[in-house]
Amino acid sequence: MAKGAAMIGPRMATMLAFLLTDAPIGYEQLHLVLSEAVEHSFNCLSVEGHTSTNDTVLILSSGAGREPALDGADLAAFAVAVVSACESLAQMMADDGEGATHFITIDVEGCDSREEARTIARSIADSALVKTAIHGADPNWGRIVSAAGYAGVPFAEEEVSLWINETCVYRKGAPTEFDTAWLSANLRANRDVHLRLTLERGGGKIRFWTCDLTAEYVRLNADYTT
Amino acid sequence: MAKGAAMIGPRMATMLAFLLTDAPIGYEQLHLVLSEAVEHSFNCLSVEGHTSTNDTVLILSSGAGREPALDGADLAAFAVAVVSACESLAQMMADDGEGATHFITIDVEGCDSREEARTIARSIADSALVKTAIHGADPNWGRIVSAAGYAGVPFAEEEVSLWINETCVYRKGAPTEFDTAWLSANLRANRDVHLRLTLERGGGKIRFWTCDLTAEYVRLNADYTT
Repeated sequence: MAKGAAMIGPRMATMLAFLLTDAPIGYEQLHLVLSEAVEHSFNCLSVEGHTSTNDTVLILSSGAGREPALDGADLAAFAVAVVSACESLAQMMADDGEGATHFITIDVEGCDSREEARTIARSIADSALVKTAIHGADPNWGRIVSAAGYAGVPFAEEEVSLWINETCVYRKGAPTEFDTAWLSANLRANRDVHLRLTLERGGGKIRFWTCDLTAEYVRLNADYTT
Repeated sequence: MAKGAAMIGPRMATMLAFLLTDAPIGYEQLHLVLSEAVEHSFNCLSVEGHTSTNDTVLILSSGAGREPALDGADLAAFAVAVVSACESLAQMMADDGEGATHFITIDVEGCDSREEARTIARSIADSALVKTAIHGADPNWGRIVSAAGYAGVPFAEEEVSLWINETCVYRKGAPTEFDTAWLSANLRANRDVHLRLTLERGGGKIRFWTCDLTAEYVRLNADYTT
């Protein structure tokens, strides 16, 4: 179970998530499993990048005291299940972002480290210009590549390639000759958008989720007084 | 002269600024004077925080070779004039932000350094939730203080006070009993908004400019294909 919608830029955010299990697993291992799951799910999520003051992810096990406790292959399978549940919740929160008309998955690959990939992905996800371009079904490679460029990770243009919904729009530092009208129609027709940006330096990669920025988001956040 | 409107998060941005003078001043001194002016003007500006790939500030002097070159009090007065011109241009760019209905001046004071103050000011300026709150005339101290909180500068709540249009809404870590209806009406009636956030640790401060986030901004950036 998770509550999201906005003020979402978890490290964490105004995000309340509760996971329940009856697995026989104690505090220390449950903490390790959940920390790893959060790292691959809630911390790969942004609605508008505004980190909140009261994020919470809890996992409760009714089987905590039961013997024998999970170990070996069972513990590994449990950890995979928790990662999967958290990823699913994080994806639903981005998809449910205030006013969203597109759910955006961002893969950043080929970086020196996972943190480097996250920094680039977050910069793309938090760009109002990227988010409005996708809202407008505009396959605007310039806004995406420039958001990667100002993320704070030094790289050369020639290292960068970019795909929008599996169409390569930018290859090794230069735009390709893609069919913009077709890709725009594709973006307009699909709620799900996939951005994939690659560098060419290593195995560091991340999958990150966000949504587009719409007039409805502005209305929802301007038209009430707290 | 300057061109701005959006993709503005200068360090620099899609911002072209040209300054002309007939002062008798050579390259090195003009460069120093302009660098100092940029630091106090264009680098204290954000529309939506999207740094661009082609920022330019040029200053041209038709008097570069003339003798005697400016020095002493004349050079100081010239430097003050360049800072003033750049500040004025930077303010006009924020005020002219795409779709803007409010021009926002953010003073952050009492920090350890000017860079610390800039980091906090930029975080507030770039928050979609702060920008939509001001668009909706909502004196929402929580969004402003939390944006300061996630800027990456560690501080305690008790150090923070906040004024919106000279009304203290948050003092030393707690909201005040201000007249929200009056302050909301005041925000609705005035295009100019002044936020002042203070810490209590030193003399580091900055003045930073931005604008609000409106449905018109979204429309302008979603409804055209580049």
